[in-house]
Amino acid sequence: MKGKPLAAIVSAGLSKFGKRDGFSGRELFAEAALEAFSKCPNLEPKKDIEALIIGNMSESFEHQCHSAPIMADWAGLIPASAVRVEAACASSGAAIRYGLFAILSGVYDVVMVGGFEKMTHRATSENTEYLAMASDFPFEQWNGATFPALFALMATAHMDKYGTGEDQMALVAVKNHHNGTLNPKAHMQREVTVEQVMSSRVIAKPLKLYDCSLISDGASCAVLTKPEVARKYTDSPVYIIGSGHGTDYIGLYERESLTSLRAARIAAKEAYEMAGISPQDVDIAEVHDCFTIAEIIAYEDLGFCGTGEGGKFIESGAPTLNGYLPINTSGGLKSKGHPVGATGVAQLYEIFLQLTGQAERRQVNGCEIGLSHNLGGSGATCVVHIYQRG
Amino acid sequence: MKGKPLAAIVSAGLSKFGKRDGFSGRELFAEAALEAFSKCPNLEPKKDIEALIIGNMSESFEHQCHSAPIMADWAGLIPASAVRVEAACASSGAAIRYGLFAILSGVYDVVMVGGFEKMTHRATSENTEYLAMASDFPFEQWNGATFPALFALMATAHMDKYGTGEDQMALVAVKNHHNGTLNPKAHMQREVTVEQVMSSRVIAKPLKLYDCSLISDGASCAVLTKPEVARKYTDSPVYIIGSGHGTDYIGLYERESLTSLRAARIAAKEAYEMAGISPQDVDIAEVHDCFTIAEIIAYEDLGFCGTGEGGKFIESGAPTLNGYLPINTSGGLKSKGHPVGATGVAQLYEIFLQLTGQAERRQVNGCEIGLSHNLGGSGATCVVHIYQRG
Repeated sequence: MKGKPLAAIVSAGLSKFGKRDGFSGRELFAEAALEAFSKCPNLEPKKDIEALIIGNMSESFEHQCHSAPIMADWAGLIPASAVRVEAACASSGAAIRYGLFAILSGVYDVVMVGGFEKMTHRATSENTEYLAMASDFPFEQWNGATFPALFALMATAHMDKYGTGEDQMALVAVKNHHNGTLNPKAHMQREVTVEQVMSSRVIAKPLKLYDCSLISDGASCAVLTKPEVARKYTDSPVYIIGSGHGTDYIGLYERESLTSLRAARIAAKEAYEMAGISPQDVDIAEVHDCFTIAEIIAYEDLGFCGTGEGGKFIESGAPTLNGYLPINTSGGLKSKGHPVGATGVAQLYEIFLQLTGQAERRQVNGCEIGLSHNLGGSGATCVVHIYQRG
Repeated sequence: MKGKPLAAIVSAGLSKFGKRDGFSGRELFAEAALEAFSKCPNLEPKKDIEALIIGNMSESFEHQCHSAPIMADWAGLIPASAVRVEAACASSGAAIRYGLFAILSGVYDVVMVGGFEKMTHRATSENTEYLAMASDFPFEQWNGATFPALFALMATAHMDKYGTGEDQMALVAVKNHHNGTLNPKAHMQREVTVEQVMSSRVIAKPLKLYDCSLISDGASCAVLTKPEVARKYTDSPVYIIGSGHGTDYIGLYERESLTSLRAARIAAKEAYEMAGISPQDVDIAEVHDCFTIAEIIAYEDLGFCGTGEGGKFIESGAPTLNGYLPINTSGGLKSKGHPVGATGVAQLYEIFLQLTGQAERRQVNGCEIGLSHNLGGSGATCVVHIYQRG
């Protein structure tokens, strides 16, 4: 082991992502939980799981707060203690971190972390409004700044400062859509070409339709244990060896930079230091591609390439499935989909599959260390985790 | 010390509770934070505080989720990592628990926990709707079951099963309103009589206006450290020696009992065992009197009296300021007010004042061990903490 195991992931589950008409958040979460339980026959969920830490962004989609006891109920875990963690689109990334703390505290031996969001039953205008609540109400939302607009500002600044091209951003979409075709749980299992991305309609200039991730329904979960009890549940645990959480000003107007996310750099630094590794040690990563520009900035903030070189990095093919550092093998938020509260643990799920050799047609051979990078809002929150095959 | 110190509270702050026209949640939180900082001159907030765990129930009141980075900003803590915890009205009780886990994990030495809610600018119908989101949407809210209705069901069952009287419930209101007159931060600093309570208008039979807690604005915070560094910041720390968190089915229709909250019994048992104490060791308590019946049930669930004897317990005068176990010396949710997300840490604040001799006209002499009991929704969540004077 490169890093010290902080907690073990002994199982994980993911609902099918997509437009899940007729399913509520609780039903999607039950679907994810059943997968995790069925894969781990030695686990007795109601007896063994002591707590549920669930990520969910918005009470508005389903007119439901206090959702943690409901999710615990639908996973059959009552009376395990249940709590919701919210950090916008990084809600379940933060749930991983606080689940990890719950294990490290010594209070619990086995906890479940997860996330869910049911979004597609709402009108586009409602989704836009609810998502915009993750920006600053008096200074951003109120003035009409939706998320595509905020990331468009970042994209424009990155293009201006580093010469990043719209065609380079398009390559992110092409890569992630390709990966999504290999993931049966992805929302959109369809290839796109650079030409299609470039000619899709403008959402917030320079971002076009195919630069944007998807409004999806979905849920995710994982079972964490103390490292020393992991082998009771599985022969192939994955260990969390690093965790980082950075926070920055919520309003773009208060940030030091528009071309880099300080929260991501802080989270990455903390996670790398805790794991005792450097970016060069990472074999695979799931990063928060809510917009294509966000993935390009993530390459830089995570140290996978130099500052300003994100465009060249995707152009080199390095982050493709056959490259030296495959990124978003799941299809990412772009193609797998982005049920916001589920995304952080869905990233963990993909890394868990990859590090345990269960990723089927998109399996990266020989990967040992994985990383997940989960943003909240326009990047006021970032949570990074580092995982190692047991 | 009776218990093992798990974390130290080295400072705490509370905004004035009430109808705070013109103040937003972030401004109220800054008010609370400034008190905590001004009371603790050895603390350098931006340098020392590594994380903020904030309780907030509803994004709807201020059309704002992802509020943790905003609160961190307004407390001057950026780039400390910030996350929101939500468990309905137990949100900041849960924030204490996860702040404690963050300390116990060894990852952080100093964290801030807190809570806030800005409610009074909304219409009564909006407040009722937003609060009802803490009940089960398809099975309770949708059918019109508001919180007064749910607690009225519990009151009716308790009256039926144990002969509890409306006059006994009224005594809870009388006691807490009296205590509130001694708390300059209380929302409603006004005595009420049994006659006034009994003749106030019916909200949900048998609950009348004065059986219900208040819709308030407010914020609360506390600074937690590892026990071994507490003396760097204060000569009079208060230690958290026990923490318990119970969860039950959210819908009343699924519960084993309507006259006792299983989540509260589980949380109390866990907290007492962790602290190594029994209910008889508790000197003061803040309990979740969202309705007078909830305080009566809390007496029983916490083991302060026998099952079904809550009515007699208040009648005996035991929980009054001059009784042997003063309860809700702050005025409680009934009179201090109930800005829902702020309540859990506001309970901690009162215990902190009492155990450090700062409670002025409502000071309980010689108290050494305090307890807080914070409910979420109609009791699907309960968080109990036990504190000891350092």
